[in-house]
Amino acid sequence: MSNYATRLHAAVHAKRTPALVGIDPRFDKLPRPCVEAAEKQDPPDRWSLVAAAFEAFAFDLIDVVAPLVPAVKPQAAFFEECGPAGTAVLGRVIRRARERGLIVICDAKRGDIGSTAEAYARGYLAGVDPAAAAWAADALTVNPFLGPDTLEPFVTVAVERKAGIYVLVRTSNPGAGRFQDRAVDAVPLYRDIGTFVEDLSNRHRDEEPFGPIGAVVGATCPEELAELRAAMPHVPFLVPGYGSQGGSAADVAAAFTADGLGALVNSSRNINFAHSRDPYRDQFGDARWQEAVEAATLEMISDLAAVVPVP
Amino acid sequence: MSNYATRLHAAVHAKRTPALVGIDPRFDKLPRPCVEAAEKQDPPDRWSLVAAAFEAFAFDLIDVVAPLVPAVKPQAAFFEECGPAGTAVLGRVIRRARERGLIVICDAKRGDIGSTAEAYARGYLAGVDPAAAAWAADALTVNPFLGPDTLEPFVTVAVERKAGIYVLVRTSNPGAGRFQDRAVDAVPLYRDIGTFVEDLSNRHRDEEPFGPIGAVVGATCPEELAELRAAMPHVPFLVPGYGSQGGSAADVAAAFTADGLGALVNSSRNINFAHSRDPYRDQFGDARWQEAVEAATLEMISDLAAVVPVP
Repeated sequence: MSNYATRLHAAVHAKRTPALVGIDPRFDKLPRPCVEAAEKQDPPDRWSLVAAAFEAFAFDLIDVVAPLVPAVKPQAAFFEECGPAGTAVLGRVIRRARERGLIVICDAKRGDIGSTAEAYARGYLAGVDPAAAAWAADALTVNPFLGPDTLEPFVTVAVERKAGIYVLVRTSNPGAGRFQDRAVDAVPLYRDIGTFVEDLSNRHRDEEPFGPIGAVVGATCPEELAELRAAMPHVPFLVPGYGSQGGSAADVAAAFTADGLGALVNSSRNINFAHSRDPYRDQFGDARWQEAVEAATLEMISDLAAVVPVP
Repeated sequence: MSNYATRLHAAVHAKRTPALVGIDPRFDKLPRPCVEAAEKQDPPDRWSLVAAAFEAFAFDLIDVVAPLVPAVKPQAAFFEECGPAGTAVLGRVIRRARERGLIVICDAKRGDIGSTAEAYARGYLAGVDPAAAAWAADALTVNPFLGPDTLEPFVTVAVERKAGIYVLVRTSNPGAGRFQDRAVDAVPLYRDIGTFVEDLSNRHRDEEPFGPIGAVVGATCPEELAELRAAMPHVPFLVPGYGSQGGSAADVAAAFTADGLGALVNSSRNINFAHSRDPYRDQFGDARWQEAVEAATLEMISDLAAVVPVP
C-alpha cells in the first residue's frame, strides 16, 4: 500500500492539476440558495441555521469540484464557530468529499503534547480507510511550535494509517516572519523546522519519492518557497496564499518538481465565492453559483498550467 | 464590568486557591461506573459510547470540584477524538461547568490567520455571557506561532466579551525548548513572545491589575517561570506540568504575586484518575471514584497552600 504522498500524486496525475480547493464557508458570503435551503429546514437556533447553510453549500461545492481537482481542504474554524451543529456538518462534509473520490486535508492546525497530540492524530487521520478515525480525513495541518516531540504522535499515526500531515513551516500572513524568521547563526526558525520535517518525511518514505510528512509554505514568500523546496526534496508542500492573499502562479512555481509534482496550491475565497466577483457575478450570480465555482476552478487550473509543468 | 483576569481573581479569592482542574478523559482510564452508565444508553457506535462515558465522567467531576476550585480546563483533543459525538459532549461539559459557577478555560490551542482566527475567537470566547458563543468558554488557549497579527482577532473578541486568552509562551513538554528557546541576541523566542503578550495584556487591562491576555508557562521550567513572571507583571499565567508531568508546588511558586494571585496551576491526570493511584485506589477504587477526585483535589489545594500565599 502506497504512502500518503504517492496516493496524493496519483490523484494529481489523474486530474492533471495540483489545484486544491479550500472549503471556507462564511455565512454572509454564501449564495442565497444555500441560505434558503437551510431556512426551509426550520433549524432550532441561529448556529444550526448557519451550519445547515454550510452543509448545503459544501455538498454542492464538492460535487462541482470533484471531477476537476485531486483534493479539498475544509477549514475547521468556520464549522467550529457554529458549535456542535457545525462540527457535525464538518464530519459529514469530510465523508462526502471522500465518497466523491477526493483527498481531504482537514485544515485544523492542531498541536499539543504527548497523549493529547495522539488524541488529535487518532481523531483526524483516517488515512486510506475513512472508518479508521471519527473525522475521516486523509491529512491534517499541524502546528510545530510546541516542539519536535509533539509531532511524533502525528507521524506515528500517519505512517500507520497511510495518512499525511502538513507541518506549518512558513505561513502566508503579513506577520508570519516575526517569529518564523528569527535567525540563529543565519538559520531562520522556519528553516530549522523545515530541516526537521525533511528528515521526518525522508525517514518514513519507504523508498517512494516523497514521504507522508508535508509542509505548509505560503505563496506570499516565493524566495523562502524556492529555498525550502531545495532543502526539503522529500516533503509534499501545501501552498496557501495564492489568489485572494496575493500570491500568483509564478510565485508558486518554485514549489514544484520538474514533472509538476511535490505541491498542492490552495485557493479558497476566489473559488468559494466566485459568484460574487467579476466576471462571474454578472454571468452567473447567486442563482447559478455552482457554475461560478466551476468556472473559477477551471480558471485556476489553467492559470497554474501556464507556469507549472502539467503533472 | 470587570475584565477576565479580575473576574478570575474574584473566583480565586472566593475559593482561596489557584488550583485549576483539567478535564482530560481517557476511555481506558475511566472509572467503571462511567462506562457502565454509557453502555446502558445503548449508543449506536463505539465513538458514541466513548463520548457518553466522557459525559458521565465529566459531569460528576464538575459537580465534585465546583465547590473547591475556581476553574476547570477541558482538553478539547480527547472529546474531538470521538468525532461529532465527542464535540457535542464538550459543548455540554463547558455549559455544565459554567452553570456550576466555574470559570471554564477551553484548552484547544487554536491558532490561524485573519478571518479564520476570528472564527475560532468568536466560536469559543463567550466571556461573561455563555450565550455569546457556540462554545461557552470564559477563555481559550492560543498558539502564537503564526505571528502577532494572528493573535489580534483573539484579543479583539476577548476584550469585547470580557473573555480571556492564554498564549503559549513556554510549554512543559520535554522537547519544548527546541524551537521556543532559540535565542537571538540572547533573547529566546519564548521571551520575545512573552514581551509581546505583556504589551498586549497591559494595553487592554483598563487600569485593573492584570489584563485579559494570559500566558501558558510550564511548571517544568521553574527558572523561565520566574524570569517570565518578572517580565510579564500584567499577564495571568496558566501553569501546566504540575503533578504527573513532574512539576512540584515549589516549582510553581514563582508564578505568583505576593498575595497569591496571577496564576492558575493545572492538574489533570492526578485528579481525574485519582481512583486508580495510591493511596486512593484502595481507599475508594472505581466505585467511589468521585470521593477520590475530591480527596486528590483537596490534596493539591493543600500542597499549593504550603508554598503559595493563600489568596
